[in-house]
Amino acid sequence: MNRAIRTDLAIELREDIKDRGKIDGIEIETRISQEKIKTTIIHVNDQTGADTLGKPVGTYITIECPEIREFDEDIHKPLCKELAHDLKKMLGEARSILVVGLGNREVTPDSLGPLVTDHLFITRHLQMEHIHLQEEPEYEISAICPGVMAQTGIETVEIIRGICDNIDVDAVVVVDALAARSSRRLNKTIQLADTGISPGSGVGNHRTEINSQTIGAKVIALGVPTVISVPSIIDGSLDVIADTFNQSYGKKLMESFSEQQRYELAYHLAEPELADMFVTPKNIDELVKRISFTISEAINSMIFT
Amino acid sequence: MNRAIRTDLAIELREDIKDRGKIDGIEIETRISQEKIKTTIIHVNDQTGADTLGKPVGTYITIECPEIREFDEDIHKPLCKELAHDLKKMLGEARSILVVGLGNREVTPDSLGPLVTDHLFITRHLQMEHIHLQEEPEYEISAICPGVMAQTGIETVEIIRGICDNIDVDAVVVVDALAARSSRRLNKTIQLADTGISPGSGVGNHRTEINSQTIGAKVIALGVPTVISVPSIIDGSLDVIADTFNQSYGKKLMESFSEQQRYELAYHLAEPELADMFVTPKNIDELVKRISFTISEAINSMIFT
Amino acid sequence: MNRAIRTDLAIELREDIKDRGKIDGIEIETRISQEKIKTTIIHVNDQTGADTLGKPVGTYITIECPEIREFDEDIHKPLCKELAHDLKKMLGEARSILVVGLGNREVTPDSLGPLVTDHLFITRHLQMEHIHLQEEPEYEISAICPGVMAQTGIETVEIIRGICDNIDVDAVVVVDALAARSSRRLNKTIQLADTGISPGSGVGNHRTEINSQTIGAKVIALGVPTVISVPSIIDGSLDVIADTFNQSYGKKLMESFSEQQRYELAYHLAEPELADMFVTPKNIDELVKRISFTISEAINSMIFT
Amino acid sequence: MNRAIRTDLAIELREDIKDRGKIDGIEIETRISQEKIKTTIIHVNDQTGADTLGKPVGTYITIECPEIREFDEDIHKPLCKELAHDLKKMLGEARSILVVGLGNREVTPDSLGPLVTDHLFITRHLQMEHIHLQEEPEYEISAICPGVMAQTGIETVEIIRGICDNIDVDAVVVVDALAARSSRRLNKTIQLADTGISPGSGVGNHRTEINSQTIGAKVIALGVPTVISVPSIIDGSLDVIADTFNQSYGKKLMESFSEQQRYELAYHLAEPELADMFVTPKNIDELVKRISFTISEAINSMIFT
Repeated sequence: MNRAIRTDLAIELREDIKDRGKIDGIEIETRISQEKIKTTIIHVNDQTGADTLGKPVGTYITIECPEIREFDEDIHKPLCKELAHDLKKMLGEARSILVVGLGNREVTPDSLGPLVTDHLFITRHLQMEHIHLQEEPEYEISAICPGVMAQTGIETVEIIRGICDNIDVDAVVVVDALAARSSRRLNKTIQLADTGISPGSGVGNHRTEINSQTIGAKVIALGVPTVISVPSIIDGSLDVIADTFNQSYGKKLMESFSEQQRYELAYHLAEPELADMFVTPKNIDELVKRISFTISEAINSMIFT
Repeated sequence: MNRAIRTDLAIELREDIKDRGKIDGIEIETRISQEKIKTTIIHVNDQTGADTLGKPVGTYITIECPEIREFDEDIHKPLCKELAHDLKKMLGEARSILVVGLGNREVTPDSLGPLVTDHLFITRHLQMEHIHLQEEPEYEISAICPGVMAQTGIETVEIIRGICDNIDVDAVVVVDALAARSSRRLNKTIQLADTGISPGSGVGNHRTEINSQTIGAKVIALGVPTVISVPSIIDGSLDVIADTFNQSYGKKLMESFSEQQRYELAYHLAEPELADMFVTPKNIDELVKRISFTISEAINSMIFT
Repeated sequence: MNRAIRTDLAIELREDIKDRGKIDGIEIETRISQEKIKTTIIHVNDQTGADTLGKPVGTYITIECPEIREFDEDIHKPLCKELAHDLKKMLGEARSILVVGLGNREVTPDSLGPLVTDHLFITRHLQMEHIHLQEEPEYEISAICPGVMAQTGIETVEIIRGICDNIDVDAVVVVDALAARSSRRLNKTIQLADTGISPGSGVGNHRTEINSQTIGAKVIALGVPTVISVPSIIDGSLDVIADTFNQSYGKKLMESFSEQQRYELAYHLAEPELADMFVTPKNIDELVKRISFTISEAINSMIFT
Repeated sequence: MNRAIRTDLAIELREDIKDRGKIDGIEIETRISQEKIKTTIIHVNDQTGADTLGKPVGTYITIECPEIREFDEDIHKPLCKELAHDLKKMLGEARSILVVGLGNREVTPDSLGPLVTDHLFITRHLQMEHIHLQEEPEYEISAICPGVMAQTGIETVEIIRGICDNIDVDAVVVVDALAARSSRRLNKTIQLADTGISPGSGVGNHRTEINSQTIGAKVIALGVPTVISVPSIIDGSLDVIADTFNQSYGKKLMESFSEQQRYELAYHLAEPELADMFVTPKNIDELVKRISFTISEAINSMIFT
């Protein structure tokens, strides 16, 4: 039924649930830092919660930057700190970490994963190479950019599982570009989830899930929304259109729709060719460069402490 | 009034003119090759024609590939030949050509211009360098990728004019990514125009025109649509929406709108943040690589003949 | 004893063997095409041959282009044809092929492998994706660019073995940049070998061999020399230096040295920091782009026949 | 007579002058910071000094990092500070600065200039675009990467002069990769000079000088050695070779040579093809990325103060 992804963000799905009170099977914590970084932790505790939210059982942490005018150098450091803190907590006892940069380096909004691995401080091989650091690293970091199926002909899950079968890894951190519904979250929200990921979902190509079942190791998904799907764009204009065409009838009609019904409608309103397209800002190169640098620095900051 | 570009393609603007008969100030020729490549030449002869079409006086040649399934190796050669033929005709007596690759190499759909210059056979310096070719080149080719304003802080027109003031150039061919209205023309239509270009218009950043007045040399614009603007996407769904909400009222309303009025409506329907976004296919990397290679080869094929 | 690689090319090692007659354990065939492409096939039949040549038992095919002035468009097609012919022969019955682009995309002379995979026509996923081609492909092509150890922290052999354990592959073609001794072979010689490869040997980083034993599938190494080692450069000037300093003594001294002794001497003559450096032409970007394109096209040409 | 560049570094030329006392027409100041960053300022005051050093009249500032083991994060900040300090002093009253990233982005050791401009904070267009910063920038920064002659067919000086004729610029900072003689200075020495630069000299392509005469504005050259020329490598081994072949004769011979004579000898010892090659470290990608980032940050740090 869910014809195409409407959002990869648990926090946007949460907004769809009209009842703002306590929801069965879902627990939510929120904290706002001094620098106005907002962290929301959504625990989906059971299948009831999973059905309500539309996301598997697990924990979803969303880190949101304050308004874009303030997304400057000053926000880089506290954002790094918050991300490192949350990622460490999710990693738990895991010390040997494989970071997987998903996505297509050649398509700007999809290059987040590869850009993150570009700036990582890789430590796994240092001992093999007899390179000794002044400080003993706390995490053993390895990394891979497997490429996308059009480039490899191989499901990403097969590549990662193969590597994990050959080297000792405690946890896999998969970094990927996501799709959001709202343009205001693009490139300034980071989502961590311990439930795995569908590679390419941000740009709409559904592949076999990468999760602890398919990989055989703990999997943490670290994502940033960099695109909006075309139906989301049309969806966003439906209320205004309803108003324009027929105030009373259209409005009532729209109100009677569930979020999913609205999305289905928008999906049908779009020309079929548009389903394989995405919407992204013109300065996406700068935005992706900036947020990927923050993520690399957050991971690097964890290595020595 | 024209709040944002609705299409850079003269051929799409032509389709808007409801009267399919003879139009004052506009002449149109069409030819279809054996390989089903369709070439449309639109002559805008006077200001009346220019006002009707919404494009300055001049000649616009559009080369359209047959359906995408057939956009394969077999189409590459006849497409090269057609483009080389049309470009030569537009260049006339010009022999020293500066090819300008407009756009941002870091944003995939905007990288068309730089990718074209990457594969050009540059000949202008060979004599200076005392490199002698077996055959005398018919055209003297030089090239530049000036970058976009966010990267340089300089209007592109100032960079190109500066170069043209310093070296002897008969004509400037500016290669740029354009915006189309229809997804079916993306990455398989080539437009040549002798009227100049606004750099970045494809991705919606209006800059000073690059044309023979501002440059002081003949300017030919060679463009390929690689993106659609967000309002065009919403515009495309308006008829269906009108139907959905209120058959009789909505339909009549839509029919009473001019193309520009529809676009204005769509523009208002989109969230304001979306005006700075664009829509592009997921496999834009492959599409841009392919068409840019064809353009380079077409120009290279002109050098020795 | 072999302190650093002096050449990766079997054909250059062959030149070192002073006796130009029949050599125990080594058989050599040579053919020259109409277009002056020279193909040399060296069969190392037993351990005696392997010890004499300094390369493991197996077959080494070297394809050499005619002089560089003629390395133009005209040579691209016959070179493609020769390479496809030889590669097919080495692949034998293998139909599902994993092409591995070794090397570091960020270091120009080491980017050969990644550049080759960039232009491959990947077919393995088409059936899974329900994409049907007009012709049935004869080979199932998949590809991966694993990156180098400084980027991944993982031995390349572990990545490839992992993938081969997870997907059905008949043969692995590893494409890598090599080191030559002579500058005249750079970027215009292609070597095929069925004995495997040490990734990074071209740029001097020795890693675990990638061969049929370590991978568990047929391994064919396809390499092009893109660099010369620093000791090779010094070695090349030793005779002239000997002449300069002391005609009779120096000359006799040089003549008494074996190739390996000369290389050892040159190795000691170089400053120690230089052992981690390489020598490459200034226009290496164009050279690597051109030869990698020829290799991709050769592999692509095999898919449909 | 000077057949090929032996070094672009004034500080290495200084070392060649055997007399370590006061030299006519040359003044030298040295200071070492707390973090062991060594800054050497060479003033070439008149033609006598210029002839002795082999560099035009002007000021050369060399900033040297301490040993490579310490070239870590801790050195980044003091290095930035020192560079910003020296650059500001050289810029004097100049406020509108055009940064020119010379070199070929596609050849790793030659990509220093383009990489520096990639990370610059460009401000020149902000006022035109009606973007207001919280703080008023002290410098107006614009930037251009003109590409190399093989890519453009145009002398770099013609491109820069053209731009400077069209926009108001007080000073041009040309950033380029240089050639050093000693491997220990590679990628960790920064040279500032107010005498201009020959683009491509680091990789051995001599072009028209970019200086205040040819540009018509103040020109400051900011360079980092990233390559060594092949003759320098052979030169470096000459003493050891002299020893090896004939202790008394060879040694005396070498001592009788001037630096330039030694270089000439080495130049002749190299095979002619090698004159168009360069020597660079295997991890040149990381080294260039790191030092270019430091340079960008130094320039960015000057903008607001």
